Amino acid sequence: MKNEKAVVVFSGGQDSTTCLFWALKNFREVATVTFDYGQRHSEEIECARQIADELGVSFKVLDMKLINQLSANALTRDDIEVKEVEGELPSTFVPGRNHLFLSFAAVYADAIGARHLITGVSETDFSGYPDCRDNFIKSLNVTLNLAMDGRFVIHTPLMWLDKSEVWALSDELGAFDFVQNKTLTCYNGIPSTGCGECPACVLRNDGLATYLSQKSAGVSE
Amino acid sequence: MKNEKAVVVFSGGQDSTTCLFWALKNFREVATVTFDYGQRHSEEIECARQIADELGVSFKVLDMKLINQLSANALTRDDIEVKEVEGELPSTFVPGRNHLFLSFAAVYADAIGARHLITGVSETDFSGYPDCRDNFIKSLNVTLNLAMDGRFVIHTPLMWLDKSEVWALSDELGAFDFVQNKTLTCYNGIPSTGCGECPACVLRNDGLATYLSQKSAGVSE
Repeated sequence: MKNEKAVVVFSGGQDSTTCLFWALKNFREVATVTFDYGQRHSEEIECARQIADELGVSFKVLDMKLINQLSANALTRDDIEVKEVEGELPSTFVPGRNHLFLSFAAVYADAIGARHLITGVSETDFSGYPDCRDNFIKSLNVTLNLAMDGRFVIHTPLMWLDKSEVWALSDELGAFDFVQNKTLTCYNGIPSTGCGECPACVLRNDGLATYLSQKSAGVSE
Repeated sequence: MKNEKAVVVFSGGQDSTTCLFWALKNFREVATVTFDYGQRHSEEIECARQIADELGVSFKVLDMKLINQLSANALTRDDIEVKEVEGELPSTFVPGRNHLFLSFAAVYADAIGARHLITGVSETDFSGYPDCRDNFIKSLNVTLNLAMDGRFVIHTPLMWLDKSEVWALSDELGAFDFVQNKTLTCYNGIPSTGCGECPACVLRNDGLATYLSQKSAGVSE
């Protein structure tokens, strides 16, 4: 149990909520930070806020809507603001986005005197975004310390876990029911098991089924 | 002369304008990017725009006002647990700000297909900001490439120069008169030699006097 302060990059989904429980177990004081970049569903941020409230941790929303000015869509239209179409994301995706989010989280952590930064990125995630890989995270860790004369440590408790192993971790942390019932992963904004059909639901629910079948078969991870 | 595209982090001041001339000499195509973070003087951005227009390079303003939500001042207002504003720090300064600016510049460079990034940071600058040091820049360079699977090169032509040497560089580049007459460094928003009294003017004009006296004495750098 480290007697220090940590900031969890938090979205209210399965992964970052599991990270939040992990942080609460490992650090004296935990704060969360959430990015508002014009998500398709405002339910995401409200869900995150409710979880933070229920767990008694501070909750900070950083307005990151300006990141959208860097999307290919916004840049090809020059300075015209991007209009978000419900259900469509690709045109507004910005490469390096996670780098920008983590950098802002670190500046926030520095401002509130937190040394530890926890993020739920994973190499086993199907996304394959380069700024979610272990090498990137370690390089960013050094860069942030040089940028702010700091001694930050970035923790990635899910880096090598697949979704069924993330479920196993939440169970180990005594948070299985909480994560299953109160988090929101679904692209259609439906909490818990969600719509069951979008890619996020399929990934989450397949992982859950795998974990539960392994657990009932007595397989230990 | 590299047959590639470069982005200059550009403010319309002496340093970044010298960097812009350096870039125009060294790269096939040059674009500029300026950050609007609520500068004291809107003249700064207008001055930058005029210089870019006159030199025929593209000019992109990125809205970075969101950075102010991370200042100690802003955080104390809406986040009770932060109490770090005691005394000295300028209330709107954000540690790690240059890291955030350069990261946004890199994402912009990636979006417009530019591999080279030029910034006028200097270790000899009196500011001593850690995110202007050579070690930081090199670490960020690696981090950005990992973040975006890229091959960025960050160039810092002024890293080891003092102000008189920056004047010498602009003279070598055939840009001495341009820089002297058309750039804005003054904290009071006055172009060219400025108000003559603010710290930025003193630094710039002392460097100029040193350079001119060395030049007239025939000292070669």
